[in-house]
Amino acid sequence: MRHTWEFFSTERIVYGNGSIRELDKILQRIKAKNVFLITDPGIKGAGIADKVLRLLEEAQYQVVVYDQAVPEPPIQTAIDCYEFAKAHMDTDAIIGLGGGSSIDLAKVVALLMAHGGHPSDYFGEHRVPGPIAPLIAIPTTAGTGSEVTSVAVLADLENNLKIGISDNYLRPAVALLDPELTVGLPPYVTACSGIDALSHAIEAYTAKDFRYIRAEGELLFQGSLPLADALAYKAIELIAKNLVLAVQQGSNLEARGNMLLGSLLAGMAFSNAGTAAAHALAYPIGGLVKSPHGEVTGLLLPYVMAYNTDVEQEKMAKIALAFGVNPAGKTEKELAEVAWQEVFKLVEAIGLPTRLSQIGIKEEDLAEIASKSLGINRLIRNNPRVPTQKSLEELLRKAL
Amino acid sequence: MRHTWEFFSTERIVYGNGSIRELDKILQRIKAKNVFLITDPGIKGAGIADKVLRLLEEAQYQVVVYDQAVPEPPIQTAIDCYEFAKAHMDTDAIIGLGGGSSIDLAKVVALLMAHGGHPSDYFGEHRVPGPIAPLIAIPTTAGTGSEVTSVAVLADLENNLKIGISDNYLRPAVALLDPELTVGLPPYVTACSGIDALSHAIEAYTAKDFRYIRAEGELLFQGSLPLADALAYKAIELIAKNLVLAVQQGSNLEARGNMLLGSLLAGMAFSNAGTAAAHALAYPIGGLVKSPHGEVTGLLLPYVMAYNTDVEQEKMAKIALAFGVNPAGKTEKELAEVAWQEVFKLVEAIGLPTRLSQIGIKEEDLAEIASKSLGINRLIRNNPRVPTQKSLEELLRKAL
Ligand SMILES: NC(=O)c1ccc[n+]([C@@H]2O[C@H](COP(=O)([O-])OP(=O)(O)OC[C@H]3O[C@@H](n4cnc5c(N)ncnc54)[C@H](O)[C@@H]3O)[C@@H](O)[C@H]2O)c1
Ligand SMILES: NC(=O)c1ccc[n+]([C@@H]2O[C@H](COP(=O)([O-])OP(=O)(O)OC[C@H]3O[C@@H](n4cnc5c(N)ncnc54)[C@H](O)[C@@H]3O)[C@@H](O)[C@H]2O)c1
Repeated sequence: MRHTWEFFSTERIVYGNGSIRELDKILQRIKAKNVFLITDPGIKGAGIADKVLRLLEEAQYQVVVYDQAVPEPPIQTAIDCYEFAKAHMDTDAIIGLGGGSSIDLAKVVALLMAHGGHPSDYFGEHRVPGPIAPLIAIPTTAGTGSEVTSVAVLADLENNLKIGISDNYLRPAVALLDPELTVGLPPYVTACSGIDALSHAIEAYTAKDFRYIRAEGELLFQGSLPLADALAYKAIELIAKNLVLAVQQGSNLEARGNMLLGSLLAGMAFSNAGTAAAHALAYPIGGLVKSPHGEVTGLLLPYVMAYNTDVEQEKMAKIALAFGVNPAGKTEKELAEVAWQEVFKLVEAIGLPTRLSQIGIKEEDLAEIASKSLGINRLIRNNPRVPTQKSLEELLRKAL
Repeated sequence: MRHTWEFFSTERIVYGNGSIRELDKILQRIKAKNVFLITDPGIKGAGIADKVLRLLEEAQYQVVVYDQAVPEPPIQTAIDCYEFAKAHMDTDAIIGLGGGSSIDLAKVVALLMAHGGHPSDYFGEHRVPGPIAPLIAIPTTAGTGSEVTSVAVLADLENNLKIGISDNYLRPAVALLDPELTVGLPPYVTACSGIDALSHAIEAYTAKDFRYIRAEGELLFQGSLPLADALAYKAIELIAKNLVLAVQQGSNLEARGNMLLGSLLAGMAFSNAGTAAAHALAYPIGGLVKSPHGEVTGLLLPYVMAYNTDVEQEKMAKIALAFGVNPAGKTEKELAEVAWQEVFKLVEAIGLPTRLSQIGIKEEDLAEIASKSLGINRLIRNNPRVPTQKSLEELLRKAL
C-alpha cells in the first residue's frame, strides 16, 4: 500500500475576461524583455495572435513570433521551432498561445532552450533534469488543461504514434486564462476539447485510490487523491452545466468562462491523479484513425464509466448529481448507473460520434486496441477496475 | 467591477502518513546540502524535532538547528534566528517545523537570507522584491495553513500589535504534511488551531465576490473566487466532520489526517481569497487579551456568520449541508440560519469559549474594537456585508 501523495501546481494562475491585459505585469514579474511567441495559423486567422502581439508591442517587448504550430505537433515541428527561436533572439520568456497543440509545442521548446538536445532525449517520465525556460501558457481552447499540466504530447509521424514527455518541470510558470479568447472557437473544436476536459476530470476523479496503485517510487500519475478529487469534481459540475451551451451558443461568454475554468481544474487534477482506461484505449485508436484526441476519449468515456461502475459506485453516483440528476427515491447503485448514461447523452448532444464504427474502427481492430492499451501501464494501473484483454474487448465491442 | 482573479500555489505539496521520510528526496530536488532547521521547544519536547533531525543526519545533510521559536514570534526572534543562521552556516535550504509560529518565523528568516535588511522593511503587502530562500514547511498543527500561505505574522511587542508580512513570494517552496506528526498535539491546541482553519475556510468561502471588491491593482486578498471556493468548501466538509474527533480522540490518525488536509485546503483558499470580519475583529482583540489567535477567530466566527447570513444565503446554506444538516423540508433561508448555529455548537463541543466576556473583553472595549477593525481595510472590504461601526458594535455585544 502507498502512503503518500504529492500535488504539484503551477505557481501562478491568472483568470478573467480581459485578463490578457495582465501580460505586461506577468512578464515584469519574470523580468523578461525578449519574448518568443508560439502559436498556430488558426489562432492567427482568428485575430487572437495579433491581439496579443499588439499588447506586447505597446509595452515595448522585443517579440519574435512562430505561428506554424500544427494540431498534434510532430517531433520535427518542435525541432524547427526551437531552431527558429535560436536563430532569432536570446529569449527571456516563451508564450504558448493556442490549444493544447501550441502550448505543448511551447513546452518542448522551453525544455530544449533550458537543456538542449533532441525531444526524444526526454520521452517518457521524469527525464527532465531541471526547470525549463520561463513559459506563459495562454489557452484558446477549453480542453486539454495543458496550461497547468506536466505533459506535452508530440506526434511521431514515422511510427504513427503519439509520444509524451511528462515531468513536473514541464508545468508552465504562469497560466493566463481569458475566456474572451475562446468565444470564436468553432462548435466542433469546442465539443472535442470540452469533452476531453470532461474525460480528464472523470478519469482523475474515479481513478483507483492512490493507496492501491501498484508501483514503486515517485509517480506522476498517482491515482485519485483528495486534493485532485475536489478540483475534478468541481470541473465535472462546471462542464456538465456548460458544455452544451458553449457548443450550441458559442457567444455565451459565461458558458465559455465556465468551460475554461472546468478545463483548468480538470488539468490540475489529472496531471496529479492521472487518467485511466479511456485514455489508454484512445492511444492505439489514435494510431488507427485521424479523429482529434478529444473525440476519441469522449466517445470512450461513457463505455469506460459503465465498465467501472460496479467498483466505483459512490463516485459515479456523485457524478450523476453533478449532472443534475434528481436523487429522490434512487439508491446509490441506481444513481451510479445513471452517470454513464448522462455522459453518453452529453456526447450525443454536442454532436460527437458515440460509436467506434462511426470513426472507422472495425471489429477486427478490437483485439489489438485492447492489447496495446494494456501495455500503457501508467494509465491502465490507474483504472479502478483492473482491465483484462477479455473485458476490454467486450467494452470495445459494446462501443462499436 | 474587477474582472480578473489570480491564484498562487505552492509548487509542491507532499502529504501522507510517514511522508516525512520523503524529506531527503525533496532536498535532493532543491539540490540542498546545508539545512537550517527552525522549530520550537514544544516540538522538540514532543520528540518531533529529533525524528526529523535523525532523518537528515542519516541522509548526510549538514544541519544546524534553531529550536527557540515561540508562539506568535516577536520581531526580535526573527532577527536573532537569522543572525544565528548566518553565524553557523551557508544555508541551502530552510526547514520550518512546527505550528504557524515556527513556520512563520522560518518564512521571515528565508526572506532575510535572500534580501537582507530588517523585518520591518517588509511589513505590509507586496514588499518582498523576489523569491525567498528555499523553504520547506512541515506543519505539526492542523490550523494556520502557513505551509502554503503568503503570510507571516510577527508580534510587535513594543506596540503590543501583530504585524503581517504578506507577499506571494513568501509561500514555501514545498509543503510536507505528515499527519503522524500531529497525533500528539494536546486537545486545547488541536481545538484552537482547528477552529482557526475553519475560520479561514468559512471566511474565504463567504468572502465578497472578487468582482465587487472595491480596490485597484493587484490584491493578495481578492475576495471569493471559484478555485478558492472549491478548496474552501472541501475544507469546511473535512473540518466539520473531523474536528471534534481530533480533539476528543487525539490518537485517531484518520481524523488527524483529515484535519491536516482541511487546514491545507483552507490555507490555499484564504491566502488567495482572503479572510474577513472575524479576522479583522480578532486583531484588536488580540491586542487586549492573551488568547491564542484561533481561540479568538473561532469565538467570533458564528457571530460574524449570523451577521452576514442575509447577504450570503446560498453559501451559508451549503455550509449547513457540509455540517451534515438534513435539508429535507427546509428552505434555503432556513438552512442558512442553521449554519452559524452549527459552528457555534462546534466551538462549544471542542471546549473553547463562546463569549467575549469569557476571555476578558468588557462592554467598554467594544467601540474601540469595532473602530480599530474597521481600519483593517484588506479584511473589512472582503466581508460580504459592508461593516459599519454601529453594526459591528451590535455584533460584538451579542458575542459578549
Ligand atoms: N499537455 C496536455 O496535458 C494535453 C492533454 C490532452 C491533450 N493534449 C494534446 O493537445 C492537443 C489538442 O489540443 P486542443 O484540443 O486544445 O486543440 P488544438 O490545439 O489542436 O487546436 C485545434 C484547432 O483549433 C484551432 N483553434 C484553437 N483555438 C481557437 C480559437 N480560440 N478560435 C479559433 N480557432 C481556434 C487551432 O488553430 C487548431 O486548428 C493534442 O495534441 C493532444 O494530444 C495535451
Ligand atoms: N502564516 C499564516 O498564514 C498564518 C495564518 C494564521 C495564523 N498564523 C499565526 O500562526 C501562529 C499560531 O500557530 P499555531 O496555531 O499552529 O500554533 P503555534 O505554532 O503557536 O504552536 C502552539 C503550541 O503548540 C505546540 N505544538 C505544535 N505542534 C505540536 C505537536 N505536534 N505536538 C505537541 N505540541 C505541539 C508548540 O510547541 C506551541 O507551544 C500565530 O502566530 C498566528 O498569528 C499564521
